[in-house]
Amino acid sequence: MQIAIVLFDRFTALDAVGPYETLGRLPDAELVFVAEQSGPVRTDTGALAITADKTLAEVTRPDIVVVPGGPGQTPQMENDTLLDWLRTTDATSTWTTSVCTGSLLLAATGLLEGRRATSHWLALDYMKQFGVEPTGERVVIDGKYVTAAGVSSGIDMGLTLVGRIAGEEHAQAVQLLTEYDPQPPYDAGAPHKAPAHLVEEFRTKSRFSLT
Amino acid sequence: MQIAIVLFDRFTALDAVGPYETLGRLPDAELVFVAEQSGPVRTDTGALAITADKTLAEVTRPDIVVVPGGPGQTPQMENDTLLDWLRTTDATSTWTTSVCTGSLLLAATGLLEGRRATSHWLALDYMKQFGVEPTGERVVIDGKYVTAAGVSSGIDMGLTLVGRIAGEEHAQAVQLLTEYDPQPPYDAGAPHKAPAHLVEEFRTKSRFSLT
Repeated sequence: MQIAIVLFDRFTALDAVGPYETLGRLPDAELVFVAEQSGPVRTDTGALAITADKTLAEVTRPDIVVVPGGPGQTPQMENDTLLDWLRTTDATSTWTTSVCTGSLLLAATGLLEGRRATSHWLALDYMKQFGVEPTGERVVIDGKYVTAAGVSSGIDMGLTLVGRIAGEEHAQAVQLLTEYDPQPPYDAGAPHKAPAHLVEEFRTKSRFSLT
Repeated sequence: MQIAIVLFDRFTALDAVGPYETLGRLPDAELVFVAEQSGPVRTDTGALAITADKTLAEVTRPDIVVVPGGPGQTPQMENDTLLDWLRTTDATSTWTTSVCTGSLLLAATGLLEGRRATSHWLALDYMKQFGVEPTGERVVIDGKYVTAAGVSSGIDMGLTLVGRIAGEEHAQAVQLLTEYDPQPPYDAGAPHKAPAHLVEEFRTKSRFSLT
């Protein structure tokens, strides 16, 4: 089962690594990081580079496609090479997935039109202009499209999909091995839980601001 | 504030990326991935390579040291270059930290002797031979030593440390931006929660097996 994880300049590392660490433990998983050009691809901080081992052109029929998000997603919305690759691989994929603002890239291809999907909480409203019905859920499955909320939610998405594909016990084994027994020291991981002034501050500064 | 994240062959990606994604959002964070040689370093799956931008020799006084774990940790227990670097940087670091079996590397340096610490649940007992008192907690702070349990626990460790360094509100902002509002589809992330036969199976196969 080939799992292609897409990289582009200024993606967010955890968006990609959460699904990698979970989906990669599927039976017969063959993970491959892909980008327009092969070689190291830098994240949004500039401090981390993950190697794209294959070009998009070299990976034509992955079983699962994973699209991370991050600040670099915005210019990719107009990158026809990437958008065409997403459309083409979607024609034969078993699952087409995204984390965070990666769902905006899927939305830009038209593939999510008329579907329920999620994204980073700051980007939810922005999805509507692509005919997508945004939800505030952490993981949304609509047909073969699986979208996850912001950054860390890719771990929940990956585990959910492992359960769908390989069964509950295999997913539990993956959860146990990755010791995914979260104990955040605060309870501020969603806009309805965090201090209101922080939510407001980020909404004002957001690149998805509608004002 | 310089944060050095150590890489070695066959580390586990999420061990490193959890702290990266949280600690990297500290004010004035300067993240640097380091390894014995610079260049791409492969994870335990072989499918992911993160670039070490600096050699150990080039990074001499990081404020925070992060040591991930993974199957490749075992041979590193006898790598004097790495162990000496950990001892040397510890002399001036503000925080010396680890995730998963990274704590065994810290233990091998002697730095954790007489201290409370944690590790991947499969490796906890193994710590005793280094004079460390293992706990089953997810994040343990003893003096300036901060150790985290398996793989995904580095996110909780990172957020905890962000709170200590930059205050609760900053940590909550990091949690909100990374949308860390975990909703695992199963509750099997710790040995006392997972199906007993899975726990037993992994204990039997573990490289830390005491039998």
